[in-house]
Amino acid sequence: MADIGARLADIVGLTEVVDDHGHDESLTVPAQRPAHVVRPETAEQVAAILEAATEHATPVTARGSGTGLSGAAVPRADGIVVSFEKMNRVLEIDTENHVAVVQPGVTLQELEERTAAAGLVYPVYPGELSASLGGSVATNAGGMRAVKYGVTRHHVLGVQAALPTGELIRTGGRFVKSSTGYDLTQLIVGSEGTLALVTEAILKLQPRVAHQATVLAPFADLAAVVAAVPRVVASGIGPLILEYIDGMTMGAITHTADLQLGIPDAVRETAQAYLVVMLENRSADRLDEDVAETGEMLAGLGAVDAYVLPGGSARRLIEARERAFYTAKAAGADDVIDTVLPRAALPDFMAAVTGIAQAHGTFVIGCGHAGDGNVHLAVFQKDAEQRSAVLGELFAAAIALGGAISGEHGIGRAKRSHFLASEDPTKVELMRRVKQAFDPAGVLNPGVLF
Amino acid sequence: MADIGARLADIVGLTEVVDDHGHDESLTVPAQRPAHVVRPETAEQVAAILEAATEHATPVTARGSGTGLSGAAVPRADGIVVSFEKMNRVLEIDTENHVAVVQPGVTLQELEERTAAAGLVYPVYPGELSASLGGSVATNAGGMRAVKYGVTRHHVLGVQAALPTGELIRTGGRFVKSSTGYDLTQLIVGSEGTLALVTEAILKLQPRVAHQATVLAPFADLAAVVAAVPRVVASGIGPLILEYIDGMTMGAITHTADLQLGIPDAVRETAQAYLVVMLENRSADRLDEDVAETGEMLAGLGAVDAYVLPGGSARRLIEARERAFYTAKAAGADDVIDTVLPRAALPDFMAAVTGIAQAHGTFVIGCGHAGDGNVHLAVFQKDAEQRSAVLGELFAAAIALGGAISGEHGIGRAKRSHFLASEDPTKVELMRRVKQAFDPAGVLNPGVLF
Repeated sequence: MADIGARLADIVGLTEVVDDHGHDESLTVPAQRPAHVVRPETAEQVAAILEAATEHATPVTARGSGTGLSGAAVPRADGIVVSFEKMNRVLEIDTENHVAVVQPGVTLQELEERTAAAGLVYPVYPGELSASLGGSVATNAGGMRAVKYGVTRHHVLGVQAALPTGELIRTGGRFVKSSTGYDLTQLIVGSEGTLALVTEAILKLQPRVAHQATVLAPFADLAAVVAAVPRVVASGIGPLILEYIDGMTMGAITHTADLQLGIPDAVRETAQAYLVVMLENRSADRLDEDVAETGEMLAGLGAVDAYVLPGGSARRLIEARERAFYTAKAAGADDVIDTVLPRAALPDFMAAVTGIAQAHGTFVIGCGHAGDGNVHLAVFQKDAEQRSAVLGELFAAAIALGGAISGEHGIGRAKRSHFLASEDPTKVELMRRVKQAFDPAGVLNPGVLF
Repeated sequence: MADIGARLADIVGLTEVVDDHGHDESLTVPAQRPAHVVRPETAEQVAAILEAATEHATPVTARGSGTGLSGAAVPRADGIVVSFEKMNRVLEIDTENHVAVVQPGVTLQELEERTAAAGLVYPVYPGELSASLGGSVATNAGGMRAVKYGVTRHHVLGVQAALPTGELIRTGGRFVKSSTGYDLTQLIVGSEGTLALVTEAILKLQPRVAHQATVLAPFADLAAVVAAVPRVVASGIGPLILEYIDGMTMGAITHTADLQLGIPDAVRETAQAYLVVMLENRSADRLDEDVAETGEMLAGLGAVDAYVLPGGSARRLIEARERAFYTAKAAGADDVIDTVLPRAALPDFMAAVTGIAQAHGTFVIGCGHAGDGNVHLAVFQKDAEQRSAVLGELFAAAIALGGAISGEHGIGRAKRSHFLASEDPTKVELMRRVKQAFDPAGVLNPGVLF
């Protein structure tokens, strides 16, 4: 049997291995250059690569844009990186069925441009437009608009995927419902490259809504912000974005972005937390009414004030918020987490965060998708053991309140030990058996999840 | 080892087996009384029953209200029926998180009443309010409102489930997003009682929208109706219901329901198909505007006219449409199918249906969820072999157009042979391995799907 390198060279040719193939944006998972890198151009090549990997029992890690935060794109030293940079085409924008068909290497930026031209939108904005769709699907990426539109999972109608055993399958289709066998699509979404490699995805699009407006409301403290959130959701006003930003984080991101929001100094000094509400409507008049209603509602819920941000400032605030991870990284954050909770448990969780941070002498700040209970925290603690203890306690607090470790970043390599320590062993065993059903040789992304 | 009957008697006691335990509403799957019926009251009893069944290699079929259309609740002669009639409580309506926690035996009717009292709604209306939530989850039930709100799958945030190996697990939670391991929730939803038995479900609720209105538009023919559908969806007006009803079916359901819709005779005689558009809005004024806009849009799309139905008539039309299955059954339909297609493929599919029906001398009429491409057809053909040929050709036509066998009824026993004949064998094998991961002894609903 030829060695795996020769097999890969036959299938698609080998690519020079460089440092960039060895890492994603995780702050804690050490970079690792793989033994081989391939850049397939067809689904059939991907399937052939996996078949060869299974025969040679060689680990395979898929790579999109490498913007993940959990180390799921960090390969094994003896492994293969399958880079999807050459499978980067939008195959179709189907305006009749409101569907996009994309290859895994397509970026969110390109999809945004292509859908905009058709008056449609792929409404999942994880905050990094250079991210690939393949990576988004593997991670089940979310972002700020999930409160209205849901996460990646809710927009993947079907995939073509290469199985580790070398076959290609197609799941789902250009329809939004099916009761025809197990939902393999939803099983593959969020599986972090451990079950199959997606070679094509059918994505649900929405009509692009014409008008948007952003309301920024400072509150005296974070407890008041998070208490207001269920009321805004219950109103039925249906915000596109419903984010909280703590005072420290707001200071950091507006400073980094050199952003003046026109908030009086007196207000800024007393406001320890902010709520950002973005609304959209196909009618400008209705949007104006909704903005006015939202302002009144927020005042009634304890907001110090409510500002309707001009378009440019609003866009820059949202962009700055999307860059919060990079702001935290630049500020020296040692890890980031994105626990998810029942929305109404946010006040209790934030109180627990404060207690845990203080007990460990650790600085923890953040912001989050308040509308869907997804709390993003930056943890400043150089000592790895202390940091792991802090994370363990934060995750335990979230789980005790009915939450889970990750809302949208995934487990990857970064949070695996916490996942395995906190998850019901019966479920982990069941997941392992599901993994075995897809990947009998265990070649897909070993060390991720399990 | 005690026999399985004695084991079951020890766990929960045996119930007298009656005819009702042997069937659902499928028109083609023969009724079959099981060997044993149990009515557990706790999740732990369900788990113990499954553990005993696995040890004794005895088939188990779950039963909710028995309103399914695919024979998935028809047990084996040597098997056990687990009836959830005693696990029928709404455990909680959580108004802060917009979540209901229910036992599997709860009916949609009860959930509707309980959520209405809280100003919330579980927006999946499969058309049979006596259906159970457990059955809805197992079938991934849909219904007319799926065009706006999605199907059962999109509203199940988590479950407690008993595994065939005797353990209880909990998946998901009171949150709408998670990237924490494989999505076992979505795998169990729609698995037709073949992977695990749901003992509790966490359901996503929505704010109940105050105002609704219904527009009925007659069209000259079905092709014109289905061609209009993508335009209505693209408008962004966001209908709650977008149904087509062919002229024959409209005549039958309005006759059965003794329903006068106030459509002039001249129009009724020329209209061979109808589009029903239900709109909702939290503002009565906005609803009025949307109704006017919809009427104009439909006129531009070729509607003969557009009628705003008074509330009582609208409700009765929707109810009559929901009862279309019973109307078809009473009229002597020999089978019903619910293929799903890309929305824009509806005209081609309907043309294919006409051709197939004529070639086989078979009468086929229907209605369907036009907004999501889900076509419900009643097939009148007494000869089983002919009927199977018709169904095979209808399914093949749907699949060739990018569709699938069932949008919401499921495969069950009724459509199994068509499913296995048309599905990619690689996928079937993969599904079998997933089944094996959950159910190594193969006790859960053998004969369903596979």
